Amino acid sequence: MIIVIQCKDQIGLVATITDVLAKQQLNIITLREYVDQAENLFFMRLEVEETTDTDVLKQNLEQLLPQGAIVHINPLPLKKVVVMVTKEYHCLTDILIRNYFNTLGASVQCVIGNHPDLQNICERFSMPFFFISHEQKSKDEFEQQITEVIQPFKPDYIVLAKFMRILSPEFVAKFPMRVINIHHSFLPAFVGANPYRQAYERGVKLIGATAHFVSNELDEGPIIAQQINPVNHSFTVGDMVSAGKEIETAVLAKALKLVFEDRVFVYNNKTVVFE
Amino acid sequence: MIIVIQCKDQIGLVATITDVLAKQQLNIITLREYVDQAENLFFMRLEVEETTDTDVLKQNLEQLLPQGAIVHINPLPLKKVVVMVTKEYHCLTDILIRNYFNTLGASVQCVIGNHPDLQNICERFSMPFFFISHEQKSKDEFEQQITEVIQPFKPDYIVLAKFMRILSPEFVAKFPMRVINIHHSFLPAFVGANPYRQAYERGVKLIGATAHFVSNELDEGPIIAQQINPVNHSFTVGDMVSAGKEIETAVLAKALKLVFEDRVFVYNNKTVVFE
Amino acid sequence: MIIVIQCKDQIGLVATITDVLAKQQLNIITLREYVDQAENLFFMRLEVEETTDTDVLKQNLEQLLPQGAIVHINPLPLKKVVVMVTKEYHCLTDILIRNYFNTLGASVQCVIGNHPDLQNICERFSMPFFFISHEQKSKDEFEQQITEVIQPFKPDYIVLAKFMRILSPEFVAKFPMRVINIHHSFLPAFVGANPYRQAYERGVKLIGATAHFVSNELDEGPIIAQQINPVNHSFTVGDMVSAGKEIETAVLAKALKLVFEDRVFVYNNKTVVFE
Amino acid sequence: MIIVIQCKDQIGLVATITDVLAKQQLNIITLREYVDQAENLFFMRLEVEETTDTDVLKQNLEQLLPQGAIVHINPLPLKKVVVMVTKEYHCLTDILIRNYFNTLGASVQCVIGNHPDLQNICERFSMPFFFISHEQKSKDEFEQQITEVIQPFKPDYIVLAKFMRILSPEFVAKFPMRVINIHHSFLPAFVGANPYRQAYERGVKLIGATAHFVSNELDEGPIIAQQINPVNHSFTVGDMVSAGKEIETAVLAKALKLVFEDRVFVYNNKTVVFE
Repeated sequence: MIIVIQCKDQIGLVATITDVLAKQQLNIITLREYVDQAENLFFMRLEVEETTDTDVLKQNLEQLLPQGAIVHINPLPLKKVVVMVTKEYHCLTDILIRNYFNTLGASVQCVIGNHPDLQNICERFSMPFFFISHEQKSKDEFEQQITEVIQPFKPDYIVLAKFMRILSPEFVAKFPMRVINIHHSFLPAFVGANPYRQAYERGVKLIGATAHFVSNELDEGPIIAQQINPVNHSFTVGDMVSAGKEIETAVLAKALKLVFEDRVFVYNNKTVVFE
Repeated sequence: MIIVIQCKDQIGLVATITDVLAKQQLNIITLREYVDQAENLFFMRLEVEETTDTDVLKQNLEQLLPQGAIVHINPLPLKKVVVMVTKEYHCLTDILIRNYFNTLGASVQCVIGNHPDLQNICERFSMPFFFISHEQKSKDEFEQQITEVIQPFKPDYIVLAKFMRILSPEFVAKFPMRVINIHHSFLPAFVGANPYRQAYERGVKLIGATAHFVSNELDEGPIIAQQINPVNHSFTVGDMVSAGKEIETAVLAKALKLVFEDRVFVYNNKTVVFE
Repeated sequence: MIIVIQCKDQIGLVATITDVLAKQQLNIITLREYVDQAENLFFMRLEVEETTDTDVLKQNLEQLLPQGAIVHINPLPLKKVVVMVTKEYHCLTDILIRNYFNTLGASVQCVIGNHPDLQNICERFSMPFFFISHEQKSKDEFEQQITEVIQPFKPDYIVLAKFMRILSPEFVAKFPMRVINIHHSFLPAFVGANPYRQAYERGVKLIGATAHFVSNELDEGPIIAQQINPVNHSFTVGDMVSAGKEIETAVLAKALKLVFEDRVFVYNNKTVVFE
Repeated sequence: MIIVIQCKDQIGLVATITDVLAKQQLNIITLREYVDQAENLFFMRLEVEETTDTDVLKQNLEQLLPQGAIVHINPLPLKKVVVMVTKEYHCLTDILIRNYFNTLGASVQCVIGNHPDLQNICERFSMPFFFISHEQKSKDEFEQQITEVIQPFKPDYIVLAKFMRILSPEFVAKFPMRVINIHHSFLPAFVGANPYRQAYERGVKLIGATAHFVSNELDEGPIIAQQINPVNHSFTVGDMVSAGKEIETAVLAKALKLVFEDRVFVYNNKTVVFE
């Protein structure tokens, strides 16, 4: 069973929390704790061996913690996920394969594409695919249609697996810190369009990718994971795109694993990640 | 102030420990805890904001912990270190530079060399250098002379910075888990002599280095840090040696930082490292 | 068009070769050359802009090169590949996805499994799957059946994508330096069975994977690619297996890309790789 | 002997060049060639076993190559280098150590500091140190004084080893593509001041460093080498600075090795690096 707690810091918090667990004979396997002193915020993740009545435990903890404490207790049911795509397959197929073999740590409910290109691969995995074109309609209508498809699935997270449309603040606000994006660059470098052309023209020796929660600022939400691959002068723009896809796939996979295992906390524009 | 604890695991340990700290109004900044369930062992590292009477705190903790608990409380005095070398400079100079600019996290007391080659560079840093040849004497006499030089310094750690003689179990036993070695290979590959020739002949694509505590088995003590660098077919044996020195320097520097910050625990033939 | 040449070294080889190309008005885009001086061997890979009559060019080159020269001219038809598997999916699905989207650089002809577990995923990609059990038959019979399935496809390469049976020297000899294996370890460390348990017990801080051509010595053929991932004390054997699968997938993908792009030469027990 | 050539591309260049070498009985050990097709530029680096009359060879090559060809023939005399610093020691000491042990591939002539802090460490290496304050004088006067110190040494390269003043375009123009800087960031991210605070506030998971030639645009010259280190939420700004210094040292060392071995070509705002 995993317990995650985020609240204002005060002396004795760890003792208070672990005392509650000890009294219920819950044995802590791993405990990670972090305090952001500048912000006076406390973050904790515990794995305990046993499972128990999560509602009672949550209540017991909350009444002893500072007001406003966030307590999640996760007896490890699978997170529910909706994936949104455009035309590129690499991140989607990595997710579909892990979902198919039950190693994703989440259950993909459906895939939404603003192009029909990836419908066939979804069908091969018996995965519902909804084609919602953004053409000949307002952004508002487009997002309204997406919302209507999403809502019955009640997803915990929406994963933008190379979804190439910018979502409105209104849409994002419906799923606060629950929309995860893979960005085609080592943020904050090369924000925006055509990063690989920018990288090529600048002659960079590394290219990267960034997985982050989507906030209202484009490409500016809290970073979950980043990684790079070396490149060199002999890489064409096409080679850089290709190397970029490899690293995008790897970084998104890592970020999803961290999120689905309840290892990621968000505050301000940052994350605490207990790897 | 840093507190490290290693003991048998039991339910409620974290609560017990943090309760002692809370009662003394000590505020925990970071806490790392790990349980090896197979071995039923508990490891914890705490940083607290304040300093306090360490003897009293140690006593308070020990009487509440399982018998045999190891409690170290470190109000951050510098560790004392003796460095042993042969002819290669790269690890030694990295240590001397950090020592000179007070960024090593330890204080180097002296350098012992079984060859005189590195005396001059030590003198340039006003660092005492003791030349103790291994020639024309028994291993026993050789190690006896080393011991006589070391003991007045009462070092916390002995760092073998490319010391190319094998130390006897008797010598190592005098400084249990306090002798740190940098091994010229990615252990357990290429144990023993001429690892770069072995690597060259095998055409490996990576070479590595391993920093470890010295136990009685040659090259077999608990691993503290490892890292690799890519190599390719165009590397001569000499190029591999050269790339190897870079990675040896980096890995030893990392291992010493971890050890000097009390982030490394040893048990069985393994380490727990709270990075 | 890609031209690869391997022959005895002599003065003027590059001039001889590039002169032939210049006379045919073939423009060299990239040229990589390497000489192993100890072995007096010359390796070259050229990409030229144009395509031409490959048979004539090959003949022109061969008559000017030292006897025994190997000249391959590749107007980039797809390599043909047969994949062999047991139960683990991660390497196979990576290959199937790239094959499906035409980004593998090769064309998978069929998959052979000694267990039926991966038949379903192959069917989802309309990929022929042959289940050939190794049970209740001699190794000779088992390999005879495999050979019968393979031969009609005339594959350029056989990829062992986590095929967990050891193939006989006789079988391997039928496809010299054309059988590619992904090894569950950073060779030469932890050769043989249960590498992750060995790694766990030794407390290593890195785990790796090695892609290599299969020679007669088990786990001992020429290395194509290697890579590592960091691990730490908190990894269970299961976590190490899981991290191992990620790195196995990445290393095999990289090795196949290198081989399918004619970037890998083999001699003695080594490779020259023009990345 | 190393030969580097940069010129307009045309068919038959490699044949022309290697034919000249063959006629002089010069045996090529390694040859690296690259063509930027968009720019129609040809780059080549050769290592030949023998040394010869470099002036004659240069003339022979130039008269057969397209007009404007740059030919450097390097019988491996050490490059001469002047190092400029401010207060931070880490890059300087890495250079001084390698210089002292003759492994830098260049010979440091002197160190210039706009603060006196690093005078003492230079003296310990018997290295001339010139303290030229930037205070109470115009930028023009300041740079004039630096130029006067530099010119008698006739350096091949000027290395800015954490020199924290911006040099004027006029100064840089005196040493075109011969001033090498280490930038405290993974360019183009976090250009300018306080990159580690920016990185901290953005919660990045990687920090990097970039070694580049200085052009007139601040932090915008051709990139020679880049690398990153992972960081996480527990890093304070100070920890990031400290991790940044490690990666700065490593990246500058790598860039200098590449430049001093004649492996780096510059054109437009990019480099070709034959690693």
